[in-house]
Amino acid sequence: MCARTSFNVNILDSTLRDGSQGEGISFSVQDKLHIVQALDELGVKYIEAGNPGSNPKDLEFFEEAKKLSLQNSQIVAFGATRRKGITCEEDSNLQSLLYAGTQTVVIFGKSWDFQVTDILKATLEENLAMIKETVEFLVANGRNVIYDAEHFFDAWYANPEYTLKTLKAAVEGGANILALCDTKGGTMPMEILKATTAVTSEFSGVKTPQGLPVEIGIHTHNDAGLAVANSLMAVEAGASHIQGTLLGFGERTGNANLSSIISNLELKMNVPCLPEGKLKLLTSVCKKVAEVSNLPLENGMPYVGSNAFAHKAGMHIDAVTKNPTAYEHVSPETVGNDRVFLMSEVAGRATILEKIRKFDAGITKDNPVVSEIVTKMKEMEHNGYQFEGAEGSFELMVRKIIGKYRPFFKLHYYKTIGEQPRIDGLLCSFAQLKIEVDGQLAVTAGEGDGPVHALDTALRSALERFYPTVSTIRLTDYKVRVLDSKSATGAKVRVLIETTDGLDIWTTVGVSTDIIEASWLALVDSFEYKLIRDIEKKYKNYI
Amino acid sequence: MCARTSFNVNILDSTLRDGSQGEGISFSVQDKLHIVQALDELGVKYIEAGNPGSNPKDLEFFEEAKKLSLQNSQIVAFGATRRKGITCEEDSNLQSLLYAGTQTVVIFGKSWDFQVTDILKATLEENLAMIKETVEFLVANGRNVIYDAEHFFDAWYANPEYTLKTLKAAVEGGANILALCDTKGGTMPMEILKATTAVTSEFSGVKTPQGLPVEIGIHTHNDAGLAVANSLMAVEAGASHIQGTLLGFGERTGNANLSSIISNLELKMNVPCLPEGKLKLLTSVCKKVAEVSNLPLENGMPYVGSNAFAHKAGMHIDAVTKNPTAYEHVSPETVGNDRVFLMSEVAGRATILEKIRKFDAGITKDNPVVSEIVTKMKEMEHNGYQFEGAEGSFELMVRKIIGKYRPFFKLHYYKTIGEQPRIDGLLCSFAQLKIEVDGQLAVTAGEGDGPVHALDTALRSALERFYPTVSTIRLTDYKVRVLDSKSATGAKVRVLIETTDGLDIWTTVGVSTDIIEASWLALVDSFEYKLIRDIEKKYKNYI
Repeated sequence: MCARTSFNVNILDSTLRDGSQGEGISFSVQDKLHIVQALDELGVKYIEAGNPGSNPKDLEFFEEAKKLSLQNSQIVAFGATRRKGITCEEDSNLQSLLYAGTQTVVIFGKSWDFQVTDILKATLEENLAMIKETVEFLVANGRNVIYDAEHFFDAWYANPEYTLKTLKAAVEGGANILALCDTKGGTMPMEILKATTAVTSEFSGVKTPQGLPVEIGIHTHNDAGLAVANSLMAVEAGASHIQGTLLGFGERTGNANLSSIISNLELKMNVPCLPEGKLKLLTSVCKKVAEVSNLPLENGMPYVGSNAFAHKAGMHIDAVTKNPTAYEHVSPETVGNDRVFLMSEVAGRATILEKIRKFDAGITKDNPVVSEIVTKMKEMEHNGYQFEGAEGSFELMVRKIIGKYRPFFKLHYYKTIGEQPRIDGLLCSFAQLKIEVDGQLAVTAGEGDGPVHALDTALRSALERFYPTVSTIRLTDYKVRVLDSKSATGAKVRVLIETTDGLDIWTTVGVSTDIIEASWLALVDSFEYKLIRDIEKKYKNYI
Repeated sequence: MCARTSFNVNILDSTLRDGSQGEGISFSVQDKLHIVQALDELGVKYIEAGNPGSNPKDLEFFEEAKKLSLQNSQIVAFGATRRKGITCEEDSNLQSLLYAGTQTVVIFGKSWDFQVTDILKATLEENLAMIKETVEFLVANGRNVIYDAEHFFDAWYANPEYTLKTLKAAVEGGANILALCDTKGGTMPMEILKATTAVTSEFSGVKTPQGLPVEIGIHTHNDAGLAVANSLMAVEAGASHIQGTLLGFGERTGNANLSSIISNLELKMNVPCLPEGKLKLLTSVCKKVAEVSNLPLENGMPYVGSNAFAHKAGMHIDAVTKNPTAYEHVSPETVGNDRVFLMSEVAGRATILEKIRKFDAGITKDNPVVSEIVTKMKEMEHNGYQFEGAEGSFELMVRKIIGKYRPFFKLHYYKTIGEQPRIDGLLCSFAQLKIEVDGQLAVTAGEGDGPVHALDTALRSALERFYPTVSTIRLTDYKVRVLDSKSATGAKVRVLIETTDGLDIWTTVGVSTDIIEASWLALVDSFEYKLIRDIEKKYKNYI
């Protein structure tokens, strides 16, 4: 592994611009401000936050963003070279770009002769003028300019001579970073290495008219599954500026995933790209960005996914327990992630035991209760349960088997009613239930936005009479997974509920062909988990 | 791009072995047989299907698999070198491996001195004997042996001399393929290139005792987001055997994704690895494998995902329409995939127009109805609708605006009832509804596994009196997405329903805070879509 500690790379995150083209993504101004703050906390150098020329909503964002005081990052606006046949002053998009008021701007232009003549319908000379004049105009207005060479690699392998002229035009205009874009995302790693090497050597020692040295950057897409590797190959070739999106969001197959790139540079290639000590914030910042984007953070994402350091195969778990370096390429703490032993069909007894000991330290491997738990777990997993993300329900299942559980209430019945047309034009769901606690009965009702909401309301209202602390808990997440979606509306569903009491967070699970029953099971586990915790705190040795 | 047409690579798919360690994967014997047939259709050379020594269920599979007659692939069994301190004849795992009855077997052994001494607790010499004797034993029993060198790259960079000895022991035993494994998945592309180059040059011209030339292979994991690139780097270094899983399934972050690797080799590097003409089956085989595995095929997966050739940004769509090579790195047909124009907030008018023209060719760009549709679509998307995967509902929305729609029935009311305890110990959901068609009323009821199932049954029973063809349709998929899961049980949900009448398949969508109402909306669209199609077929010009 190389020792280039003096060689630094700077990062441009485009989650808010290129990433917003990804499926299912739609950022409000408020979302964008939250993501900017998360990225600033992580310490990427540039945050490319929008294209004020093509999207008026972005102008509103830039206005708001001026009020933020950022510690590590600067916000960057993105736009195109001036349109053909007009001057920069006449170009409204460039006016919007100035109006955004960022210190640095990114300008993209065409590198590929074919794109100039066939798509843009301009002459090759006019394109060079468009590039140079646009950069010049922005520099004259006090901006630093990063130049994105669109389709650079296709262009380079088709007509290197003209392509080089476009880069030189940008430098002559005053751009001091040239980002080579693999716009279609189909270039192979060795081709990236060769082309980037040629460009870094061409611009080695070259300065802008303002006397700034020229840096080479890379911007890749994942259409061939190579965006991360291609970014690293560019660094091997001397590039020192990387564009991507933190979680790989982007059109089609996505942009280069910066969480992977940053981890590889810092941990494997000894190339710093974040301020010191920031790498260990990576996983939590990734979770924040996913949450604001309202997309799940992929479990299998390198370094930051919940499975990145998860061990399932019994053989591996034994070895990892003996020595983490045996099956882990880096320590999970370096990126702020955790080691996880998955409970699942193939998980060995040792894993289960480790989990059980958390609330009964006395149990040994040979205790028959361990077999009983494994058997019960397999049976429930066969029926669609999954305890991998539902520690609350797992604990209750174990408690029931080892005898450290008694029910907090008995259900006599519940009924839910859904109705169209809506009553008062508003409500469509109602629930009624009857429970018994120590011989006392409670009959309550609830209304809601849906049957589960109504049932939750009714159950809460019944339980509060006996257990006042249930009023402190709040459901924070509700997930539904249709298990055998091919059985259509008769399919089994798994419901996961996340709950908090302001201090702890726990997740519970329920499975049924009936979504209301599945939700009920998860709901009951959630309330019982809370009540057990309360007793534990109060009496220490709850039995 | 290189021109190595004479150089072929063979592929080993381990979806059924290493892939089965992936999250949420659990294959039945029948599932495994289906996947074998799909992979054989695609034409990978080897299908690694299980570890008969460690999993008795796998033996049952190998018994069944003998009955298959495969066209292109051979099934391979996987196992470890003999245990220390015993002979191969005494090792029950090796006996199971022979019993599996495959022509080729894969044997994995330890390459890393640290793993031998610290994890296996054996001497370095005994490890070499274990490797050589195991391979020898299997070759003497008539097997071809592929040797998987576990932790090869870590071992190579720690102690190249000993690592090389382990490979030589395998060749002396008779193994003619040496697969270099990046077991922890953390090796950088340039390190793979260097180490593999050293090994291919070391074994160039070397033959097994049986006179077979030695091939070098590669087996990577995706922990650094580099598994695909690392496999290609090994090919650059002369490797000609690649191990991975078709969709990248595997423990932690997954194994090398073969669908990406195969596409890159065939389309970008001019290295054939499937029988001629098979590449265009890739997407459909991937869909089949995902379906049998009961996992969604990731929309963003390179080459084979539904978004791999999807265009969203208005600017891109214009350019793609003008010339596909402008924004596509390969033609979607080469891998059996399709080009898709997504309908979404940022989609331009041109895209909408193209969609609308499918059922009203006369509408032009300037028709005010186009603006009206765009506005309505944005409004509905704002409320949680997504038409990207719901063409059926999109068509109905457009028809309503352009006046090519009349309702097929009027709902007076519906009521659903959910109940615990279950009636007869069985049923928990009931629905009743009243509809009106041309002044005639129908009041029907339905029972079901859940409220939506009951409502579907009641609606069907009501509609069949007026529209007998609704009895031919069947719901084939039902998906639920909680949109703002942070609002917990009061969250908005989006329901997608896929329906077929045996000829066509269509998808419809509904959104509400009430899952029953959301399902109802999607259900009504689904029935109406079918009835419109019937009328179109019968009367051509439905108004």
